[in-house]
Amino acid sequence: MVKSRGPKENARLRFARNLRAKRNERRLSQEELAAIAGLHRTYVGSIERGERNVSIDNIERLATALHLDVVDLLAP
Amino acid sequence: MVKSRGPKENARLRFARNLRAKRNERRLSQEELAAIAGLHRTYVGSIERGERNVSIDNIERLATALHLDVVDLLAP
Repeated sequence: MVKSRGPKENARLRFARNLRAKRNERRLSQEELAAIAGLHRTYVGSIERGERNVSIDNIERLATALHLDVVDLLAP
Repeated sequence: MVKSRGPKENARLRFARNLRAKRNERRLSQEELAAIAGLHRTYVGSIERGERNVSIDNIERLATALHLDVVDLLAP
C-alpha cells in the first residue's frame, strides 16, 4: 500500500472523498449508486471509507454511473 | 470488466497510453520505471498494453515515480 506522504492526501482517500461528495450532490444513496454501477452496496461503502484499493475499471464504472469522467473523481 | 462505450476511450486504455507517453518523455525504460515504482517490469509492460485492471494504489505509485499527479495519467 502507498502511504500518504506528508500533507499530501493519497489518491485512495481523495477518490473516497470525491465519490461521496459527488454521490451526495446527486442525492443518491450508496445503495442506489451501487445498483447503477453494478457493484455491491457494502463495496461502495468501503470505497467511500478509503478501505478498498479500487481498480481502474471500477473507478470508471462509478464515474459513468455519476455521469462524470474518471478525472472528476480523482481531482485534488 | 468495463467495455469501451462507442468512440470514448476507456479509462484503462487512456491510462495505458498516458503512462507510456510520460515514461518516454522522461526517457525511462519500463524496467527503470518499474524499479522506481517498486513494481515488476512485466507488470508495467502489461499495464501499458491495457491488459491490467490496475489499482488506485499502483496508479499512484506510477504517478509518484514519474513526479506526476494521478490525474495527469488519467487525462483524456
